[in-house]
Amino acid sequence: MHELINKLKDIQSELTDLGHAASVMGWDQVTYMPPGGAEDRGNALATLSKIIHMKTTDPAIGEILEELEPHIAQLDPDSDDARWFKVTKRGYEKQTRMPVDFIMRWTKETSIAQMKWQEARQKSNFSIFQPNLETIVELAKEGSSFFTPYDHIYDPLLDMYEPGMKTADVKTIFEALRPVQVEIIQAIKDSPQVDDSFLNTTFPKQGQWDFGMELLKAIGFDLNRGRQDYSAHPFTSGFSINDVRITTRIAEDDLISGMMSTLHEGGHGLYEMGYNPAYSRNALHGAASLSVHESQSRMWENLIGRSLPFWRKYYPRLQSYFPTQLGNVTVEQFYRAVNKVEPSFIRVEADEATYNLHIMLRLEIELGLIEGNIKVAELPEYWNDTMHAYLGITPPNDAMGVLQDVHWSHGLFGYFSTYALGNLVSVQLWDVMNEQIDNIDGKIEQGEFGEILQWLRENIHVHGSKYEPQELIEKVTGSKIDPQPYVNYLKQKYGQIYGF
Amino acid sequence: MHELINKLKDIQSELTDLGHAASVMGWDQVTYMPPGGAEDRGNALATLSKIIHMKTTDPAIGEILEELEPHIAQLDPDSDDARWFKVTKRGYEKQTRMPVDFIMRWTKETSIAQMKWQEARQKSNFSIFQPNLETIVELAKEGSSFFTPYDHIYDPLLDMYEPGMKTADVKTIFEALRPVQVEIIQAIKDSPQVDDSFLNTTFPKQGQWDFGMELLKAIGFDLNRGRQDYSAHPFTSGFSINDVRITTRIAEDDLISGMMSTLHEGGHGLYEMGYNPAYSRNALHGAASLSVHESQSRMWENLIGRSLPFWRKYYPRLQSYFPTQLGNVTVEQFYRAVNKVEPSFIRVEADEATYNLHIMLRLEIELGLIEGNIKVAELPEYWNDTMHAYLGITPPNDAMGVLQDVHWSHGLFGYFSTYALGNLVSVQLWDVMNEQIDNIDGKIEQGEFGEILQWLRENIHVHGSKYEPQELIEKVTGSKIDPQPYVNYLKQKYGQIYGF
Repeated sequence: MHELINKLKDIQSELTDLGHAASVMGWDQVTYMPPGGAEDRGNALATLSKIIHMKTTDPAIGEILEELEPHIAQLDPDSDDARWFKVTKRGYEKQTRMPVDFIMRWTKETSIAQMKWQEARQKSNFSIFQPNLETIVELAKEGSSFFTPYDHIYDPLLDMYEPGMKTADVKTIFEALRPVQVEIIQAIKDSPQVDDSFLNTTFPKQGQWDFGMELLKAIGFDLNRGRQDYSAHPFTSGFSINDVRITTRIAEDDLISGMMSTLHEGGHGLYEMGYNPAYSRNALHGAASLSVHESQSRMWENLIGRSLPFWRKYYPRLQSYFPTQLGNVTVEQFYRAVNKVEPSFIRVEADEATYNLHIMLRLEIELGLIEGNIKVAELPEYWNDTMHAYLGITPPNDAMGVLQDVHWSHGLFGYFSTYALGNLVSVQLWDVMNEQIDNIDGKIEQGEFGEILQWLRENIHVHGSKYEPQELIEKVTGSKIDPQPYVNYLKQKYGQIYGF
Repeated sequence: MHELINKLKDIQSELTDLGHAASVMGWDQVTYMPPGGAEDRGNALATLSKIIHMKTTDPAIGEILEELEPHIAQLDPDSDDARWFKVTKRGYEKQTRMPVDFIMRWTKETSIAQMKWQEARQKSNFSIFQPNLETIVELAKEGSSFFTPYDHIYDPLLDMYEPGMKTADVKTIFEALRPVQVEIIQAIKDSPQVDDSFLNTTFPKQGQWDFGMELLKAIGFDLNRGRQDYSAHPFTSGFSINDVRITTRIAEDDLISGMMSTLHEGGHGLYEMGYNPAYSRNALHGAASLSVHESQSRMWENLIGRSLPFWRKYYPRLQSYFPTQLGNVTVEQFYRAVNKVEPSFIRVEADEATYNLHIMLRLEIELGLIEGNIKVAELPEYWNDTMHAYLGITPPNDAMGVLQDVHWSHGLFGYFSTYALGNLVSVQLWDVMNEQIDNIDGKIEQGEFGEILQWLRENIHVHGSKYEPQELIEKVTGSKIDPQPYVNYLKQKYGQIYGF
């Protein structure tokens, strides 16, 4: 048995290295690559993907898995080897159930769709993208069909990003969440708005960068094992637990956005640095799911980075970078400004209270398209109507509405929900952490994040992808993903800020 | 035939992409990678090398080559396809003649030797490295033995870097060169030394960087298809003709070194950007040889970058960056300082007049070791004696002497000569260029480098590795590599500066 396990782990080890190579190229592509290099980089990445795909779907893996299965059945099902086997088998099946012909069509169509989406967004004209999106919806359905039987045709899509999660679960969660969030937003709208006019000025780039680096070091992002650079769209890429790259973007007229992006990606980065080193070159390396990943970024960005104790500690530092801009603004004023709620068109700029509604809209649309109840041609209207129903605003054009996100052009159906689920999970974890660690607020106010990080390391990070997300969250919090803690959190925090 | 050619070119295309991946990882490793990432990067690069080696030596290539040979024999031997076949076959034979067992021993022993060399250099103690170097010498001899018959056992080593070049050729060239260079250095020693005391001050980094970027743009380094970054050891890496990375290093107490390094790597970079795009994904992509590559860097660094017309144009710009340091220094004074000749211990810091002697010492040692006339244990003494004979100075320790270069620990026997040959070639090309382009000095003095670059593009760059180096140089200059133009150049330039 050990020989077979090692044989499979050797294959995974090679795949780890090829993935490392692709990640470095992907990171370079959006940080330092000169524009002229795009085409050759595209070719190189395509070749690497092809090699990785061939090695991932090598029938030899299937044979080893089959031979191993009876031996693994003898092990403690919670042992690393048993779990590793399960994750490996799940991955292999996902990769091999889709025929090569389908993957080739998928790759080709999404690559065309990406260009069309760019053009459509630029011209703010949905009809340019519409035929491509129609093709992608058909491909998504076809993709699902390889994973029968399922409870719902959307399940296999969701399962790509949230292993084990069902459409019915997400619908239940979102249905409980939506009315309460709409209600909270209404209450905020009926209250006097927060004054953040002091932010309408210029905050030079260097100061924002330096302050962001201070925050990164403070929360425990290890610069010996990672770094931050600039990119147009902030992201995190872990080449390994010992080399984690995050990026940020800084706008001189938007102090909050760059800072929060740094904390957000920093949270993702801490997760990437915290996987069990023993998993480094096998299938247990990596996040439990996208929602668990997002719970980490949102915890550092929102639960910590938008809290009053945090700013009690760091606001004087921020003032020292920007004395003329912030010298006369109190920490309480600043805290309220950082938490201003205002319905807006663009998801990635949405605040904590409205964000999940942006996601719910997208899930409704994806379900409608996949179930066949919504036509692609109807999307702009559906989008605008729903935005008005949830947030009371109507996008002035498609670029600010249905065309804003890149995801569908990449064929990423099933992805969006994980953002909202991540918000919910972050608060579930936070509540339990607060039961287990004394006086967290006091520690944050001292800039002491060691115990928080240690708790996340031990309860979440170290497990890598050993557990399915719902299983992991239940193990740590005693319940599966649950909207109630998030609702309580929103009500309490924004009730206090907006006085309702 | 075309089908077979395309089949082989598809393989080379895939290898281009894998090489691209390895180059990006190698570049990142020495520019931005956090220190903690070293081990995982090493693993990823090793895996990629293994895959590249397997694909390069795939017996299928040998079969296609064999099948193609009679068809290729019908073609014009100077056609791209015929030359491509020749280069492909040569490469395949080089890769496959060495048995896998030998390559594995080689990889293992050189990897150990690199660590030992580092330790030895740090402690300035040759005996730490001695046993490893002994192993490497034996491996180098064994490596040669796979390429019998040869005229000289050193030929196959040289041929790795200078295709077609023979040991006898290099010896003849160096024997003609050595006495004249020793004589020139003696004449310089007997003349009053140049005053460069005004350089013994501080030149802030940012100004040096900005000035270097100005120079890069001026000489035609296309920042849309390349970039410059920092690294401990400057180098050039072309991921493709459309993405060429160069690096520099800047010391605040050494203005000349950083500037010249930028021009040097810039020259390499222009070559990498200039290969025929039609060769991009096949075996004709790349330099004709290392000496031809070096001729390009040395031309921009020395023939242009250390010329009086160049500084007549750029010295006022340099003064504007460093007005307090250089405000009272004339361009003639500066020109003489940039060309100060002074025997020194370290090759990479050597001036134009002494540099080749550093190389000749290394070739003598390599030949002695490979022929068995010098023992590894004798190297420190041999080194110091020869340095004294050639340059009149004796290194105070092994770190400043025999341990200074990394090359031998990597097993790079046969490499050093290409540096000196590159110097010779640069002047041969320069002389012909001066016959064919009017008033080059005047153009340099106007900062007009377009015609120079165009000439290099058409005569050297575009050919990639279609021609062997001696063939290419003869094609352009009418003679093979010849030391006389370089000797004339040195005598004339330094006779004028030092007045002999």
